[in-house]
Amino acid sequence: MARFLRFWLSPSPQRALVIGGSGSLGSSVISVFKNHWETTNLDFIENKEANYNIVVSPADDTEKHLAQANEVLKGKYDMILSTAGGWCQGDIESANVFSQVEMMMRNNVYPSVLAGHLATKYATETGIIVLSGSLLVFKENTPSMLAYGICKTMVHNIALNLSTKQNLTSENRIICLVPDILNTEVNRESMPSADHTKWVSPMKIAEKLYEWGDGKNVPENGSFITFKLDKDVTIEYM
Amino acid sequence: MARFLRFWLSPSPQRALVIGGSGSLGSSVISVFKNHWETTNLDFIENKEANYNIVVSPADDTEKHLAQANEVLKGKYDMILSTAGGWCQGDIESANVFSQVEMMMRNNVYPSVLAGHLATKYATETGIIVLSGSLLVFKENTPSMLAYGICKTMVHNIALNLSTKQNLTSENRIICLVPDILNTEVNRESMPSADHTKWVSPMKIAEKLYEWGDGKNVPENGSFITFKLDKDVTIEYM
Repeated sequence: MARFLRFWLSPSPQRALVIGGSGSLGSSVISVFKNHWETTNLDFIENKEANYNIVVSPADDTEKHLAQANEVLKGKYDMILSTAGGWCQGDIESANVFSQVEMMMRNNVYPSVLAGHLATKYATETGIIVLSGSLLVFKENTPSMLAYGICKTMVHNIALNLSTKQNLTSENRIICLVPDILNTEVNRESMPSADHTKWVSPMKIAEKLYEWGDGKNVPENGSFITFKLDKDVTIEYM
Repeated sequence: MARFLRFWLSPSPQRALVIGGSGSLGSSVISVFKNHWETTNLDFIENKEANYNIVVSPADDTEKHLAQANEVLKGKYDMILSTAGGWCQGDIESANVFSQVEMMMRNNVYPSVLAGHLATKYATETGIIVLSGSLLVFKENTPSMLAYGICKTMVHNIALNLSTKQNLTSENRIICLVPDILNTEVNRESMPSADHTKWVSPMKIAEKLYEWGDGKNVPENGSFITFKLDKDVTIEYM
């Protein structure tokens, strides 16, 4: 009740910009944040729960996406998150390895570069910037999913570079999520024999992100964070 | 004389395929190898010292480059090297960071993926595959040269993935070069106040690569190798 009153009396709610806010993690973030935050989604499709949408075309390059974002974004954002991501299987021998690298760049890397670039212009002085990596890639080489692995490694490296805060304030925090397999319908169906009981749902991750936005248990700048489900979902520093 | 006779009497010399064989390191490799090896260069411009050239267009994608390579390459190659590379300065805030990432992908990453892909088809059973990374990026975060750093990190990760040898033989070796600044005219001119006396020339690196091709002091599979100049050039495992 106290929190509701504080929000209700507040002249301007906190603001989140979600790159990839129509995907499984991004739409969970917008669902969790929407009651108390102003939310802006940048994605290939609209998210009707978001206050603002920047719908970009996969046929356009990231510079065009940036131009569209610059037309819509105003003021400063308390959280800027890239929840975009994509996965594919295939090794170096695959005839389509080159197009797989291009696809993984578009799905994983460019949204991260865009989030970082937008953060230099639109993050508040204490703003939190979140990128989305991969626990598997963080821990192991992944030759069977070469394009995915090398692109997620690049996301991890973008986070490390941003966390030097050359282009941000000393109070900004860059956090790289390195989740394990998410508990989504698609993942359960594609891995029917796996043990789903330990998989963390996107909603649970979104709730942790909301805590951070609310100033609670915010990981340190430069952290790589994964999520474990026991009775409850807990975060772990990698 | 003995070596010359051995080569002259040998029905088939050893064979090297150099991706980027017209660049500063690549042309040194072809100069050093050409007297005793058959050399094939794949690059945007011809190298007249090479026995064979596959001249590709920067306007075409890597799948097209691969198709051109498949038309020319025959048999097996004892060394497959990507000596391609490119550098640029610029941080996450740069308006052209997105096009810089694309350029660095084309200059550094796609040639490495192409070399790895071609190795699965054209490397001999004991063939050596060499990729070109960066000592600076291997050791540090490089936010001032973000696109370069994230793309060289990707090259390092490609090397780690290839060195699992999922798509190669147990006797193949993947070696990732992580040179410091090369002693080239361009580099000396662009960094006039630096101490050039410790910079290693591309020819010296090419001579080390030739030793490896000749079976001498070949680094272990999965090695990251740099070069130091004291009196002589020595290799160092990273």
